[in-house]
Amino acid sequence: MPAVLVVHGGAWAIPDELAAASVSGVKAAACDGFSVLKKGGSALDAVEAAVRSLEDNNVFNAGHGAVLNSEGEVELDAIIMDGKTLGSGAVSSVKNIANPVSLARAVMEKTDHVMLTSRGANLFAESIVREDFNAKWAHDTVGAVAVDSDGNVACATSTGGIRNKMVGRVGDSPVIGCGGYADNFSGAVSCTGHGESILKVTLARLVISYMEQGKSVEEASERALKYMGDRVHGAGGAIVVTPSGQWAATFTTERMAWAAVEKDTLW
Amino acid sequence: MPAVLVVHGGAWAIPDELAAASVSGVKAAACDGFSVLKKGGSALDAVEAAVRSLEDNNVFNAGHGAVLNSEGEVELDAIIMDGKTLGSGAVSSVKNIANPVSLARAVMEKTDHVMLTSRGANLFAESIVREDFNAKWAHDTVGAVAVDSDGNVACATSTGGIRNKMVGRVGDSPVIGCGGYADNFSGAVSCTGHGESILKVTLARLVISYMEQGKSVEEASERALKYMGDRVHGAGGAIVVTPSGQWAATFTTERMAWAAVEKDTLW
Repeated sequence: MPAVLVVHGGAWAIPDELAAASVSGVKAAACDGFSVLKKGGSALDAVEAAVRSLEDNNVFNAGHGAVLNSEGEVELDAIIMDGKTLGSGAVSSVKNIANPVSLARAVMEKTDHVMLTSRGANLFAESIVREDFNAKWAHDTVGAVAVDSDGNVACATSTGGIRNKMVGRVGDSPVIGCGGYADNFSGAVSCTGHGESILKVTLARLVISYMEQGKSVEEASERALKYMGDRVHGAGGAIVVTPSGQWAATFTTERMAWAAVEKDTLW
Repeated sequence: MPAVLVVHGGAWAIPDELAAASVSGVKAAACDGFSVLKKGGSALDAVEAAVRSLEDNNVFNAGHGAVLNSEGEVELDAIIMDGKTLGSGAVSSVKNIANPVSLARAVMEKTDHVMLTSRGANLFAESIVREDFNAKWAHDTVGAVAVDSDGNVACATSTGGIRNKMVGRVGDSPVIGCGGYADNFSGAVSCTGHGESILKVTLARLVISYMEQGKSVEEASERALKYMGDRVHGAGGAIVVTPSGQWAATFTTERMAWAAVEKDTLW
């Protein structure tokens, strides 16, 4: 089974002066994630590694600058999902966490819940004392999807949200079926774009639904993004993989930074 | 176009001594919601009225008693969605709010966001000063779906969550596509049951997906609940209406309190 990993660094009108750095950032993250797959690692480990690489890359911070809510604070959202078991972890509105995707994974693996929010999510982070959660800054929406050599798929998405958002605003990123979805029976998707629009059409689940109806990964992504544009006038992007290794990176925004690795090819 | 309204008061092993009161509670709420439709009101107004009736009914509180998180506090979640516009509002982990469904509606109508969590959601409630948000107690998961005489559908779901949950735990209820979904192009769904399982299969969106594939409301609901049972071993229930007035109330738990009103018939 051919392993594949696809990442994105957010879909928006990326200015020319940031485009090159964005592209090299997503390519580096794609390679970081794919190196996990190459060693026989799981899709789940690979998407976590790729998203951590993006979370750690200042390019995806410097782009928007620190994205602050209306009280001038940073609140972060992230999700991770294992297509083999539908195991899912999500955190919303957490503060002072460097790698929200890893906190989301801890929610998945160390609690009976799948989503923790705000102070509760931070209390949980403190309770499990993993130093690598500590951090200083926000970042764009980033994400990864992967299929490993056993045909298991996984997705992860992480974000600092939108500028001047209301305190406690939750976007699409930590919401299962919206910012991401993964099921070995169909595929894995990670989304980015206008959060409120993605929520209204449950974009990740909509892409999967079209795939279940027999559409290719490209057709399913395009059709779902078109529905979002037509129905709620929102733009965005999606990356997709299937258990058999089909993949796509599609967007209706002006640009989306993305990269993919398949066998020894970096796209 | 025949108007229909269906409500539920939670799907679980309702004990015999509560069954009668549960049934009369959902019937009363169904009539409250339907009276809005009868006066020519919208599906959106009708589901809000029905869920407020359930939120205000002590039966659905006395059942579980006040459901407390692990710090001994009450945290509430709710969602409302307008199938005409996909307008959506949700609140998670709010405290001291009597009618979270109406706060969710305020998020939909008075902010640019669709989901607010925790302290931010409470700050928002204070900022809009609607006395009817103030309250004392928690309640079971309750929900409503409706289609009005113009063929517009809407859904609403509200809950106190599960006993001894972690602080900040978000269940399925406030999550678009999981606790509820509404789109005039397909139908409206409100779900109840094991929250983490509902999240993993995005139950409301899954029911809609099967309907889009041509399944009847009963078949779509049964198939989605079966998938949830098979894939993640979770039980629950769903109520559904379509723009043309088809409806169903389906569950895989031992019991689910539900009621429906159609023309002058109370089911």
